[in-house]
This record gives sequence, structure tokens and C-alpha cells, in this order.
Amino acid sequence: MVTGVAPIEEAGPGQVTFLANPKYVRFARESMASAIIAKDRVEGARAAFLLSENPYLAFACVVELFHPPVRRPAGISPAASLHPGARLGKDVTVFPFVVVEEGAVVGDRTVLLPGVIVGKGAIVGEDCLFYPHVVLYHDVRVGSRVILHAGCVIGCDGFGFAPSGEGYRKIPQVGTVEIGDDVEIGANTTVDRAVLGVTRIGRGTKLDNLVQVGHNVTIGNDTVIAALTGIAGSCRIGNRVRIGGQAGLAGHLEVEDGIQLGGKCGVAHTLRASEARVWSGVPAIPHPTWLRMAMLLPKLPELFRRVKHLEDAKIPKGEK
Amino acid sequence: MVTGVAPIEEAGPGQVTFLANPKYVRFARESMASAIIAKDRVEGARAAFLLSENPYLAFACVVELFHPPVRRPAGISPAASLHPGARLGKDVTVFPFVVVEEGAVVGDRTVLLPGVIVGKGAIVGEDCLFYPHVVLYHDVRVGSRVILHAGCVIGCDGFGFAPSGEGYRKIPQVGTVEIGDDVEIGANTTVDRAVLGVTRIGRGTKLDNLVQVGHNVTIGNDTVIAALTGIAGSCRIGNRVRIGGQAGLAGHLEVEDGIQLGGKCGVAHTLRASEARVWSGVPAIPHPTWLRMAMLLPKLPELFRRVKHLEDAKIPKGEK
Amino acid sequence: MVTGVAPIEEAGPGQVTFLANPKYVRFARESMASAIIAKDRVEGARAAFLLSENPYLAFACVVELFHPPVRRPAGISPAASLHPGARLGKDVTVFPFVVVEEGAVVGDRTVLLPGVIVGKGAIVGEDCLFYPHVVLYHDVRVGSRVILHAGCVIGCDGFGFAPSGEGYRKIPQVGTVEIGDDVEIGANTTVDRAVLGVTRIGRGTKLDNLVQVGHNVTIGNDTVIAALTGIAGSCRIGNRVRIGGQAGLAGHLEVEDGIQLGGKCGVAHTLRASEARVWSGVPAIPHPTWLRMAMLLPKLPELFRRVKHLEDAKIPKGEK
Repeated sequence: MVTGVAPIEEAGPGQVTFLANPKYVRFARESMASAIIAKDRVEGARAAFLLSENPYLAFACVVELFHPPVRRPAGISPAASLHPGARLGKDVTVFPFVVVEEGAVVGDRTVLLPGVIVGKGAIVGEDCLFYPHVVLYHDVRVGSRVILHAGCVIGCDGFGFAPSGEGYRKIPQVGTVEIGDDVEIGANTTVDRAVLGVTRIGRGTKLDNLVQVGHNVTIGNDTVIAALTGIAGSCRIGNRVRIGGQAGLAGHLEVEDGIQLGGKCGVAHTLRASEARVWSGVPAIPHPTWLRMAMLLPKLPELFRRVKHLEDAKIPKGEK
Repeated sequence: MVTGVAPIEEAGPGQVTFLANPKYVRFARESMASAIIAKDRVEGARAAFLLSENPYLAFACVVELFHPPVRRPAGISPAASLHPGARLGKDVTVFPFVVVEEGAVVGDRTVLLPGVIVGKGAIVGEDCLFYPHVVLYHDVRVGSRVILHAGCVIGCDGFGFAPSGEGYRKIPQVGTVEIGDDVEIGANTTVDRAVLGVTRIGRGTKLDNLVQVGHNVTIGNDTVIAALTGIAGSCRIGNRVRIGGQAGLAGHLEVEDGIQLGGKCGVAHTLRASEARVWSGVPAIPHPTWLRMAMLLPKLPELFRRVKHLEDAKIPKGEK
Repeated sequence: MVTGVAPIEEAGPGQVTFLANPKYVRFARESMASAIIAKDRVEGARAAFLLSENPYLAFACVVELFHPPVRRPAGISPAASLHPGARLGKDVTVFPFVVVEEGAVVGDRTVLLPGVIVGKGAIVGEDCLFYPHVVLYHDVRVGSRVILHAGCVIGCDGFGFAPSGEGYRKIPQVGTVEIGDDVEIGANTTVDRAVLGVTRIGRGTKLDNLVQVGHNVTIGNDTVIAALTGIAGSCRIGNRVRIGGQAGLAGHLEVEDGIQLGGKCGVAHTLRASEARVWSGVPAIPHPTWLRMAMLLPKLPELFRRVKHLEDAKIPKGEK
């Protein structure tokens, strides 16, 4: 009888856990869990094994079984501010201090937690979940089944200023943002509206917390971007791209489908998948080259000494 | 007849567009736009050309013609919380769930969008535009025509803790923040109040999203700072400085007027304009040196092999 | 008679200031302050000296004397939304537009500034101070005397997605967050809830603004982490660790007690204090090695030339 799920370090009798990262094999061996979802049986472990080609995915399904997503009861808080010219679908839930402005549309069953702001003319799909204090600026469009975490801001002005004789003049940012279905965006992440046209985030793409997406960026489908990454204006990121944390991309470049970027890398020009699948470093170079380079960097002082030694040997002392 | 503006990849008949980045010349050639603002005529293009020494600036003016900034109608929402001891100027607009605390002053025609918090004794100038959920802590001072984007926080405590025998003791942050006229600050950016004295952001300076400004920092006029940059306490940044994204500045240093810092650079000591105008790398060095270095880094494994080869050649095999 | 405190550049008659950073000795010399707290007397200075082994700590105490923390008057705003099933302790202060959801508990004397959201079942200790728009997701637990700055988000979903045949499947994040006593967390910082189990931040630890803490991370006691740092999932950070700004830690690694990480460093594997106390660079290496390496990097072009020269010398011109 299995009654719950737990991490592999803590799972006990009656609990199911999973093993995906080889670092945790030792925990599997000692585990008192009733069952472990894994790719292969672990020698010497007591638990029953549930074998899966993709243990992490299988585990996701099991967690959902034990923790079915709570559907909050439908209802509109009287403490929300809904413009008479806004349209809410069926069974929309609106918590206190939510604002839905004129001309905005919110799809069926979408949940707006406290303090969410849906700007003038913004359009939100069905079955979305917006956590507290999410802000949609005017006219942005969000697909269905989109999850936006607390404090994320969609459609703020891009960073566009033209140097003039005295200081800078603001370029009005009159474009918008379009977010596809099944996107999830992390807490306090910011997505700029286009100067003209559209900043686009494709279907199924996931952004972590504190990510910055500049104006007129296009991100494809099923791309994942880790925290604190910054993408400058007009970049085109492909489908199924994976970007590590704190990566930075200069403006007006392309990252092709399926490319992976290491954490902290700095991309200064277009990256082609034909050249390398994985890129690292500042500026980003193919990952294998970067790895070799990174291993040699600490030996640089030694190399300088060795070269000095060769130079000294070349010139007999008396001739110096 | 021109009826609107559009980006160069999309502009069609009846639309005006612009060309500033040489990467986009091919779009100009194929464009169906009625007119293109550019520095020079593009050979083979069908569009009419509007020549300008500063096409980006000219374009800014044209966008404004077609999209004049909407002045939101004046009015105070009954769902806002205004302390009787707060003073609002003429034609201030206050949206629902705004809080203006005791002793705060808000200048004429300033617009406070939903959820803006103006702390005790904070002073805000005229014609400002604060997007949803902007937070001003107590006593900060903001100039006129300032734009603050959603979720930005002005005047939070600086990161000051004195190590004591057991753990840390908080240094009360009793200074404030002063923001000059015509400043624009991006979404979810944070500006710490001074421990004593003032954190200052000068007239016309623009901060992008997710920037961190530490306590007692001084930033001059007409400086631009891109997203995810962090400036540690007590730095002095000059006028007309340009800082790329994800740059980091250690505390108590100076960056002189007119200097440019590359994206992701790390500044560890004062930078003098006389030494170099553009700096890059970690730690930051003059940009031309950095460029040469960056090009050679991937060749480091080869260099190690070449040195090994020289060493081997020097010592005849039999003598080893 | 001393009536106030001021920074050393500005302190005048009747004010006390402090000297901790040797860079500021020249200001001490010229200061008109009535008294300076310092480790040693400064030759030629007019001010009285208050000598202390830890001038910064002594100064913290003096600032507190002149600026005793204002205890906001107790009271519950009628414009807050408190679920009947929430429990508030004695003398809790609740500002307008605060939401405390079902089953949440708020300890005695805690202050919730405007727009704070305390999620379902969240538990908050005594004497806490939460600035505007702080968001606690459901079921997180916060100790006593905790300060959370504006816009910080505690308990948002970790970034967990299992690749499936078509795109990604969300791993439900069903764990929680526990924050110890005397913790302070900066503005717009984000702390993810655990996928299972607990994300933990130990007693007395201080996080700066815009920090990202991933799911299932454990941070010890009295650790300080500067702005824009990112800590990926399942990291274990020890006690009294000091992390510079914009540092990045890959997932599933350990940083032992007392270690210091330089700003912008990138940690890719577990760091042992026995190997080095201070680490820098990407990937992080012991700081002294990094320093030597960083000094030599700009000389890389010269080194390539020197090696070329040696190679040319080896092969007499005629033989090439």
C-alpha cells in the first residue's frame, strides 16, 4: 500500500520515490521506501522497483496522482475592481484586489489570485493560473493553460532610447506581447512589449524566475530558460532550446532549434546547430573547446614560467 | 499617404519604417513600405527615403506622431487608500488599490496605476507615470516626468550587516533615495536607500528591468544601464555612462563620465576615461585588449601543445 | 553634544560618524564631525575618537540609538481581506489591501504592509516585518523577527519539467519553504518551494535583492548572499558562507561552512573548505590561483607572440 511520495533521502515505508540523478544511487541502496521509480534496478536496495525509460516523467505523473491540482472554487471577489467593459468567461475566479481593465477578456475557468492586474484590452485564454501581483500591461495576449508566477510583468516597455543632442529621447513602445498555450513563467520575470510588432513566447516554453526578455524577441516552442538569464532585443530563439541560468544574449542574434547554452554563457553572435549543439563561455564557444580551455586556465601562470624558461635557455647567460 | 509605422521586416504600403542597424539593409531592399527613414538611400529599394543624420531619433518622433501618449483621464478611485495627511496635486490620477501614506506628496498630473504604494513622507514630482505595484519606501524623493515600471522598488534597505560575535547585526538604513527628472526605471528593478545620506540617480538616466542599485550609490545624468546589472554600495557612476546587461560593479569604486561597460563585465576598481573609453571582461580591462584575449582563449590548448613541443625539442630524447 | 549620525564625507559638528574602510581615511582627517568611531586614532584629525575593535558594529548600535525602529501602531485596516479561518496574534498590524488566506497564522506584533499576501495555511512568526507586495505562497513557514522586503516571493513553484515525447510535463511542486528566525530577504528576491520536502533558509541568514533560490535548496545559518545570485535546485549551502553578487551555483552541489565565493563566480561542483576558503572565477577555483590567472589573461596575446618567436628561432630561416 503506497500512500504518498517523498524525496529519495527521506522516503519511508508506504512512500514511493524516484531515482533519476546517478548522484543519488547510494540513497536508493539504503532507502526504506516502498517503491522506487528508476531506469534500472539498484543492486542491494530493499524497495520494489518501478522501471521506466523516463523516471522523472513517470514520477511527475505519480506526484499528480497523490496531489491532484486543487481547482479553486469559482467566484468573483467583491473586493476586485472589474471594469464594466471587461469580459470574463465562465467559472473565472477573481480574488480580492484584482484589477481587470476596460476591454480586457479573461477566458473560462482562469484563476486570478490577489493583486493580479489585467491591463486595458489584454486578452487571456482559458484555464490560466496567475499568481498574486502578476501584471499584464495593456493589449498583451496570453494563450490557454498558461501559469504566471507572482510578480511577473508582461508587456512593460522595451529599453529603447535614441541619443539626442541633450540626453535620450524615449522611443514609444507601441507593439505588444503574445504568449502561447501551455507556457509557464517564473516569479518576478519581465517580458518587454515590442517597439513595433510583437514579442513572442511560443507554445510550451518555460521561463524560470527573474528572467529578462527584451523587446521584439521571439522564443520558439518547448524552450526552457533558467533563472536570471537576460535576452536582449530582437533575438530569435528557436524551438527546444535549453538555456542555463544567468546566460546573456546580445541583441539581434539567432539561436537555432535544439541548441543548449551553458549557465553564465555570453552569446555575442548567431549560433548555428550545425556548428555545435552545446555552447559555453563568454563569448560562447562550442562546449568541448570551452571545457578544455577552462581546465587549462588555472595553469596559465605555470605556462608563463615555462615560456620564460625556454627563452632563458635560448640565450646563454653571458650574452644577455 | 502614410497611415502608420511598422518594423522594417513587416512594413507595407502606407507605412513608414526605419533603418539604423546595417544588419537590416536587405530588408530595406525588399521592403514594400511607403517610406524608410535612414542615413543613406539604399540601392535598389522601392521605398521613398527620408534621410536623417540620426534615423533612430527621427523614427522616435514619427512613432510619437502616430501614437501620441494617452493621457489617462484624471480621477481618484474610491478603492484607493489615501491618508488624510497626504497631499495630491492637480489632476492626479489614482487607480484602485493605490496607497498614499501620511505626509506623502504627489505632483500635478502624475498617474498612479493600480497597486502603487507611495510610502510615508515620499515626494513625487509632476507628470510622473508609475505602473502597477511600484513601491516607494518612506521619504524617498522622485523628480518630474519620471516613469517607473511595474514592480520596481525604490528605497528598500541597503544590504548592511555588521558581523558580531554571534551572526550579524543589521545596520539601520536611515538614509534615502533621490531620483532626478526624466528618469525611467524598468520593471522589478530595485534601488536601495542609503545607510546614511542619499542614493542618487541623476536627471535623464535610464535603468532597464531587474537592475540592482546598492545603498549610497550615485549615478550621474543621462546614463543608461541594461538589465540584470548589479551596482554594489557606494559606487559613483558618472554622466553619459553606458552599461551593458548583467554587468557587475564591486563597491566603493568610480566609473568616469562617458565610459562604456560591456555586457557581463565585472568591475573591481575605479575606471578612468583617460585609460580607456570601453571596458570588458572579468575583471574589466580595456575592450581592445579583451577582444584580442577573447579570440586567443579557445587556442589555449594548442598553445600548451606548442610549448610542450618546444620543450621536447630543446632536450634531446636521450638526455631526458 | 552629539545629536545625529552622518556618513564620513558629510558629518559635521554635532554628528558622529565611523571609519571602517581604509579608503576613507582622508575624509577622517578633514572631518568636522564631533566624533569618529574607528579602530585606531587617525593622525591629524580634529574629531574625538571612539575606539572599537569592530567600528562597523559599534556604529550599527549608535545608528539605532538615534533612529530607534518605529513600531507602527497596531491595527487592522478595514480595507484588508482576512479569511475568517485565518488566525492573527496580538497587536498584529495589517495595512490596506493585505490578504491573509484560509488557515494562515500570523504571530504577535507582526506588521504586514500594503499588498502583502499570506497564502493558504502559511505560518508567520512573531515580530516580523513584511514590506509591500511580499507574497507567501500556500503552506510556507516563516520564523520570528524575519524582514521581507517589497516584492519578494516565497514558495513559488520550482523549475521542474520532465521532457516527454511532445514538450515538457510539469512536475507538481508539492513541497514547501521554511525560513528561520532573524532572516532578512531583499526586494524582489524569489525562493522556490521544494518539489517534495522543504527548501530551507537557516536562522540569521541574509539574502540581498533579486536573488534566486531554487527548489530543495538548503542554506545554513548566518550566511550572506549578495544581489542577483542564483542557486540552482538541491544545493546545500553551509553556515557562515559569504557569496558575492551575481554568483551562480549549479544544482545538487555543496558549499561547506565558512566558504567565501567571489562576485560573478560560477560553481559547478562541491566546494570543500579544506581545499580553499575563498573561491573565484567560472568555473570557480581557489581565489589566489584565480588572481594570478586573471592578471596574466591580458598578457595572452604577448605570450602567443613570444611562443611564435621561440618557434621561429628554433628553425633557422633557410630551413623553413
